[in-house]
Amino acid sequence: MLVMGIDPGIAITGIGLVKETPGGDPQLVHYCVIDSTAVKDTSSRLLFLHQELEQLLAVHQPDEVAIEKLFFQKNAKTAMAVSEARGVIRLCVSQHGLPLTEYTPNEVKQAVTSYGNADKKQVQEMIKVALVLDKVPKPDDAADALAVALCHLASSGYRRLLENADADY
Amino acid sequence: MLVMGIDPGIAITGIGLVKETPGGDPQLVHYCVIDSTAVKDTSSRLLFLHQELEQLLAVHQPDEVAIEKLFFQKNAKTAMAVSEARGVIRLCVSQHGLPLTEYTPNEVKQAVTSYGNADKKQVQEMIKVALVLDKVPKPDDAADALAVALCHLASSGYRRLLENADADY
Repeated sequence: MLVMGIDPGIAITGIGLVKETPGGDPQLVHYCVIDSTAVKDTSSRLLFLHQELEQLLAVHQPDEVAIEKLFFQKNAKTAMAVSEARGVIRLCVSQHGLPLTEYTPNEVKQAVTSYGNADKKQVQEMIKVALVLDKVPKPDDAADALAVALCHLASSGYRRLLENADADY
Repeated sequence: MLVMGIDPGIAITGIGLVKETPGGDPQLVHYCVIDSTAVKDTSSRLLFLHQELEQLLAVHQPDEVAIEKLFFQKNAKTAMAVSEARGVIRLCVSQHGLPLTEYTPNEVKQAVTSYGNADKKQVQEMIKVALVLDKVPKPDDAADALAVALCHLASSGYRRLLENADADY
């Protein structure tokens, strides 16, 4: 199974693609960011995000997509702008007929480091270890997206384990 | 000029189309709602919204689009869900190459009733008068969208007035 993890932002959206090897290990496929910093107008920025994500979905053809849940932020303007980007991402994934799963930031940390209070640096180090990389993926948005993808793979594995356990009875 | 006014919501999005007659009066062209109440899944709801808006833009071919600005709400979950819908609306308008102008609720009230503290009922009565209708358009979401379209027409008229005044000097 190939999973695309997405970490949405106002200007920069992180993308991380991870697949499960036949042995059950996660393997890095690709990571990048959709950087619309240079696009100043909000509508054009959403158009750019949609076009770039469209292309990434077409090229990599993931089986499932996972995205980080947005929690209420102190800065309401930021929360609403990120939500607009999330709406466009949801739409694009839906247009490709793919299932989208949401995870809270704590669920992502818990899945990657085994505890919910891990800091950004610990999460990034664990991504490096889990994907057997030489260094931490940069920028942070791409690393965060890989963490979301790893979280989804782990949850899927756990779901399968439960289903198999059920089948044994 | 034909203006499409949009009042976005989580489940129901109001649409109002108003054109300016050669004499400068506003004239009702069409109003309706995109009602996705029956669609339970958020992603499918955004997909439905995009498809319906796409069709309305193709059929009516407005020259410009106006939308009500979202203010920070007490219910952050609602604000974020409406922002996701706004993101999809922005994208769709942008895909059609149309300009999108935003107005605050106060600007809309001010433009339609001449003062910013008007209540919903007063705004609706003024829409009836301005568009020479037999009754207030229903549901409220459609009436709100017509108010946004009227606000944009009024602002455009005002902009033209200023430009002409400039040209006189």
